[in-house]
Amino acid sequence: LKLIRCVTSFKIMSRYDRAITVFSPDGHLFQVEYAQEAVKKGSTAVGVRGKDIVVLGVEKKSVAQLQEERTVRKICTIDDHVCMAFAGLTADARVIVNKARIECQSHRLTVEDPVTVEYITRYIATVKQRYTQSNGRRPFGLSALIVGFDDDGSPHLYQTDPSGTYHAWKANAIGRSAKTVREFLEENYNADIATNDVETVKLTIKALLEVVQSGSKSMEIAVM
Amino acid sequence: LKLIRCVTSFKIMSRYDRAITVFSPDGHLFQVEYAQEAVKKGSTAVGVRGKDIVVLGVEKKSVAQLQEERTVRKICTIDDHVCMAFAGLTADARVIVNKARIECQSHRLTVEDPVTVEYITRYIATVKQRYTQSNGRRPFGLSALIVGFDDDGSPHLYQTDPSGTYHAWKANAIGRSAKTVREFLEENYNADIATNDVETVKLTIKALLEVVQSGSKSMEIAVM
Amino acid sequence: LKLIRCVTSFKIMSRYDRAITVFSPDGHLFQVEYAQEAVKKGSTAVGVRGKDIVVLGVEKKSVAQLQEERTVRKICTIDDHVCMAFAGLTADARVIVNKARIECQSHRLTVEDPVTVEYITRYIATVKQRYTQSNGRRPFGLSALIVGFDDDGSPHLYQTDPSGTYHAWKANAIGRSAKTVREFLEENYNADIATNDVETVKLTIKALLEVVQSGSKSMEIAVM
Amino acid sequence: LKLIRCVTSFKIMSRYDRAITVFSPDGHLFQVEYAQEAVKKGSTAVGVRGKDIVVLGVEKKSVAQLQEERTVRKICTIDDHVCMAFAGLTADARVIVNKARIECQSHRLTVEDPVTVEYITRYIATVKQRYTQSNGRRPFGLSALIVGFDDDGSPHLYQTDPSGTYHAWKANAIGRSAKTVREFLEENYNADIATNDVETVKLTIKALLEVVQSGSKSMEIAVM
Amino acid sequence: LKLIRCVTSFKIMSRYDRAITVFSPDGHLFQVEYAQEAVKKGSTAVGVRGKDIVVLGVEKKSVAQLQEERTVRKICTIDDHVCMAFAGLTADARVIVNKARIECQSHRLTVEDPVTVEYITRYIATVKQRYTQSNGRRPFGLSALIVGFDDDGSPHLYQTDPSGTYHAWKANAIGRSAKTVREFLEENYNADIATNDVETVKLTIKALLEVVQSGSKSMEIAVM
Amino acid sequence: LKLIRCVTSFKIMSRYDRAITVFSPDGHLFQVEYAQEAVKKGSTAVGVRGKDIVVLGVEKKSVAQLQEERTVRKICTIDDHVCMAFAGLTADARVIVNKARIECQSHRLTVEDPVTVEYITRYIATVKQRYTQSNGRRPFGLSALIVGFDDDGSPHLYQTDPSGTYHAWKANAIGRSAKTVREFLEENYNADIATNDVETVKLTIKALLEVVQSGSKSMEIAVM
Amino acid sequence: LKLIRCVTSFKIMSRYDRAITVFSPDGHLFQVEYAQEAVKKGSTAVGVRGKDIVVLGVEKKSVAQLQEERTVRKICTIDDHVCMAFAGLTADARVIVNKARIECQSHRLTVEDPVTVEYITRYIATVKQRYTQSNGRRPFGLSALIVGFDDDGSPHLYQTDPSGTYHAWKANAIGRSAKTVREFLEENYNADIATNDVETVKLTIKALLEVVQSGSKSMEIAVM
Repeated sequence: LKLIRCVTSFKIMSRYDRAITVFSPDGHLFQVEYAQEAVKKGSTAVGVRGKDIVVLGVEKKSVAQLQEERTVRKICTIDDHVCMAFAGLTADARVIVNKARIECQSHRLTVEDPVTVEYITRYIATVKQRYTQSNGRRPFGLSALIVGFDDDGSPHLYQTDPSGTYHAWKANAIGRSAKTVREFLEENYNADIATNDVETVKLTIKALLEVVQSGSKSMEIAVM
Repeated sequence: LKLIRCVTSFKIMSRYDRAITVFSPDGHLFQVEYAQEAVKKGSTAVGVRGKDIVVLGVEKKSVAQLQEERTVRKICTIDDHVCMAFAGLTADARVIVNKARIECQSHRLTVEDPVTVEYITRYIATVKQRYTQSNGRRPFGLSALIVGFDDDGSPHLYQTDPSGTYHAWKANAIGRSAKTVREFLEENYNADIATNDVETVKLTIKALLEVVQSGSKSMEIAVM
Repeated sequence: LKLIRCVTSFKIMSRYDRAITVFSPDGHLFQVEYAQEAVKKGSTAVGVRGKDIVVLGVEKKSVAQLQEERTVRKICTIDDHVCMAFAGLTADARVIVNKARIECQSHRLTVEDPVTVEYITRYIATVKQRYTQSNGRRPFGLSALIVGFDDDGSPHLYQTDPSGTYHAWKANAIGRSAKTVREFLEENYNADIATNDVETVKLTIKALLEVVQSGSKSMEIAVM
Repeated sequence: LKLIRCVTSFKIMSRYDRAITVFSPDGHLFQVEYAQEAVKKGSTAVGVRGKDIVVLGVEKKSVAQLQEERTVRKICTIDDHVCMAFAGLTADARVIVNKARIECQSHRLTVEDPVTVEYITRYIATVKQRYTQSNGRRPFGLSALIVGFDDDGSPHLYQTDPSGTYHAWKANAIGRSAKTVREFLEENYNADIATNDVETVKLTIKALLEVVQSGSKSMEIAVM
Repeated sequence: LKLIRCVTSFKIMSRYDRAITVFSPDGHLFQVEYAQEAVKKGSTAVGVRGKDIVVLGVEKKSVAQLQEERTVRKICTIDDHVCMAFAGLTADARVIVNKARIECQSHRLTVEDPVTVEYITRYIATVKQRYTQSNGRRPFGLSALIVGFDDDGSPHLYQTDPSGTYHAWKANAIGRSAKTVREFLEENYNADIATNDVETVKLTIKALLEVVQSGSKSMEIAVM
Repeated sequence: LKLIRCVTSFKIMSRYDRAITVFSPDGHLFQVEYAQEAVKKGSTAVGVRGKDIVVLGVEKKSVAQLQEERTVRKICTIDDHVCMAFAGLTADARVIVNKARIECQSHRLTVEDPVTVEYITRYIATVKQRYTQSNGRRPFGLSALIVGFDDDGSPHLYQTDPSGTYHAWKANAIGRSAKTVREFLEENYNADIATNDVETVKLTIKALLEVVQSGSKSMEIAVM
Repeated sequence: LKLIRCVTSFKIMSRYDRAITVFSPDGHLFQVEYAQEAVKKGSTAVGVRGKDIVVLGVEKKSVAQLQEERTVRKICTIDDHVCMAFAGLTADARVIVNKARIECQSHRLTVEDPVTVEYITRYIATVKQRYTQSNGRRPFGLSALIVGFDDDGSPHLYQTDPSGTYHAWKANAIGRSAKTVREFLEENYNADIATNDVETVKLTIKALLEVVQSGSKSMEIAVM
């Protein structure tokens, strides 16, 4: 009997996410929430902002023995001064990265200035939002940590999710076990870490080690 | 048995909100009403119009410890003389804000005058209405309080909802517990408050405190 | 058992109003009829044509204490000589009013004459009809009373509904309790009223009082 | 048990008229047949062709007491020499009439000759057919009697239905009780009537009186 | 129990003909087969090819007493030298005839030669095929007999059906009871008939009389 | 009970072939497989490649007594040096043949060389593949044997199916009983046959006789 | 009972893959996963990167006796320096190969340099991703091994799947029994093999022999 009740409630939910991303009776957008499930399945990524640097760390999915590690990258350069780590669907990420790169180039050409980190974050978030309101398209299945420096040399760390929201953080994590890592960061991030570049990097690595299997060295760290 | 009856009635409702926003047999647009549920889940925003000022106050969702408060803003500038607070989906709000900003600029260029507060409110409401009647698009999941000054220096406070309606108010609230706050405002708004700028700001804060957890300081106040 | 029968018959109806406005087996367009239910939920509007004047009266929804009455208007100017009162979805009404205003301006520019009241009524009705036959759009959820003067100074009163039909009337009502008010008008409209401007206004007010809660003053009267 | 069987058979039919007008297993186009039901609900219209004249008569729906009879017309002029009476959805009729009028004007401009009655009838029927085969549109819910004179002065009477078929008639009826009226016409139409203009008009009126409630004067007669 | 089984099997079929004309698991295109049912409901048409002539005969649906026989034609001229008789939906036939006529004119203009009978038959069949493979359109509900002469004076008789296939025949029938008539033709068509023009016409009439109600004269014969 | 189980499994399959050609959980494209069923219902076609010739043989569906055999052709010329035999929907085949002919002409014009047999086969297969991945279109319901000579005089035999795959063969069969014929060919095709033109033709005929009803002469042979 | 439970769970999955590729409640894209099933049904392909060479090996589906082996190729040239082996739908592969070839040509024309192996791999992966997010299209049903040399003479081996992801490998396998072959490669690939060209080829063949039926010679090897 229990099984059947479970099935019935599934049915009710499933009505609201078919043709497009529509509201459920209690105001949810299910397709967006399902996309967030895809993100939770992705590999963990951590970002920590220091004084003059900002650090990204990504758990590497246990790379197959013969795979070239070089192409299993979860950290991409968007512009000279902007990087992005993501959790979720790799192919979706590439689409987002390509769009962001083109926007950066086009911004340079028209405004004759590099983009600010917030500008490109907002651009990425807007592309994502559009896919939650377009006719017959699924949302993007990825969250991203975007880091970089503005013209004044200040480091920034932003995070976006499939719904198209973005926020700035001192330190944050996305992907599998993101909650655990974020709690670790909240406990351990302090003024000392924020002003000492070496400590910043250390914290990033320690946070990742919380979720990465012991003994494994599969990690990718980017220090800007 | 009760469960089953409940399920059956869900089924009937769910028929009317699939592909597009259509009428139910008793004349409701369910997608619009579901979007309003999303608004009711948003953080509370309060607006109070004084003599020479107009005040917006927004409850800040308990900001994560490491989040940069700066980017968790629920109050946005639309033009030099117009601000907007919203409740509902953050990503949808950004789309609306962007459209409104572009309209303000384009209005300045063509008419050589800033927009009036009502003009930009009507523009925002019209964009929202269009999404309740378009082929295969969901409505916007946000309500907004729009405040600002016209050329003659008179302050204005408008409120729009997902259906695309808008009205002017002396004081109003949207989002979670909006009804409670609105009742508080009705009891406490009077001529004294309307003409004393300090009292106007005080009332806004008091109204918000009605719903904000005691001891918490997470509030954002904008005085124009 | 009764409940179940009721549910079953709902199911049959609901089949015919999904993707678009299609015919039911007995020749009904359900989406149009459901839209008419939305109209019946709207506030009552009354129109009475006199000798040299034509009067519109609208019940004001119990305005919230702090709402600016100015923007809770159910009577809109379409052109210098044409006004419209509506019952139904406020946001839909604004779309119709905007389209009508643009048509009036464009008519003046191309024909160098103001529109006749029938011309703009036919325009509005045609826009409404199109939405009952378009691919994947819902009908407009409003009825309207359109009043105004032609070049020869003769007053006119027209009424349109969501299906896109329109007719001229000496006096008529739309919205909540429209039937009651119409019956009151039929009993009390006579030659005396039709030729005496003061009596025309009086009748409009009396008709509205039939449905407005006693003691309430929430009424909006427009005398052209 | 009977009820349930009835419901089941409804279900089978309803499968074939959803998204578009498609064939049922026995070769019917249900949407077209349902549209014909809407026609059968319309007010009765009668057309009789005489020697030098052709007469249209329409039952007037019991006009509300305060309605302006002028705009409750079921007979419309399409060109100087062509008229049309219809039964079915009034708003659909207006669309058809508008299209027909524009075609008449455009025909005059390009061919420098007025349209023949058959030409404009074929045009109207073709528009109707297109809506029975288009992607996601409902058929037009009206039948029409089209009357007029060709250049040689010969009178014509055509009838079209929602499927887009048309035929020429000596006398015919559409709308509510059309079958009864047609039978009356078959019994009473004869050479005498066909050649005597007064008798032609008389027959039209008598035929309509078959279905109009006794004592009522709500009739509209057009003699060309 | 039998009824229920019947209903169930209906359900299975109906799955494959909704949105578009798709294949069923055993390789059928149901919408096309349902359209052929509509043809089988149409009035019988017979075509017989003689030596120098080709004859079309069509059963006239019992014309209503007051109908103008002239417009109840099932035989249409497509070009000076090509005629077509059809069985099925009259309004669909008119669309096909119009398209064919335009193609004939356009062929004359570009190639400066009249079309051959096969050319225009192929054109008609291609239009029909397209509607069996287009997104969201129903097939045409008609079969046609196309007759005419090529430049060398040779008579031709072609037949097309809703699927878009066509073949040449010495003699054939379509519509109601087509099978009976075809069998009659097979028994009675012989060299004598094929070379004697009078016999050709006689055979056409005799074949039609097989299915037309005795005593009725409702027949339409075209001899080219 | 058995019947019901059968029905249930039908239901599962039918889910995956509605709006478009989508994958089933085990990686099948059902619409393509159903189209192949339509091919299996078509008349048998055999192709055998010899030394300097290539032969096509097609079983003729028992031609109705009065049908002109000339137009019941299953073998079409695509260019001077390329022929095609098909099994499946005749009307679909004509569309494919037309497209192929136009491609041949256009190839001659632009490249000033006739197409190779593989080029036009690839073109046909690509058109077919597109219809298995397009939004809302059914696949083509036909397999084809394409034969011809390249510029160097070498004969070729290709076969394509509804999925859009194609391969070269020494000898092959499609349509009804294709498997039986193919087995016959495998047993009897040898070097002697491949180099002796008379034997090549003989083998084609013998292979067809395997499935054609004894005594019947309904066969169509093309020797290139 | 077991059967029924199985059926029910099928139903739940099938809801999420109809009109388009949408997310399931736990974040899966079912259409993409079903396409991967189609790949698993394809013939096995192996790629091994050596020092100066890179080798592709493909199991040949038991070629029918009379089939021309030449056209049953699973290895295609994309450019002078790039080859591709695939597993999955042959017709889909041809579309991908064509698009890739055109991109290579167009790259040469605009950039005046041949593409790098990664560039064309990314191009192919991007085309695949687009089909997982487009309105109403199914994903491509194929995985590919792409091999080639960059301008500096370094050999590369990439692999893409239906989701649009790609990675570089030292050695990898796709298609039927890919897991078995990959495990064999992991055990046997070593520095010796990577630097000795003969050993590289040998490993490829040995890996394929793991899954190819003993005694069969149906293999296709490409050494670049």
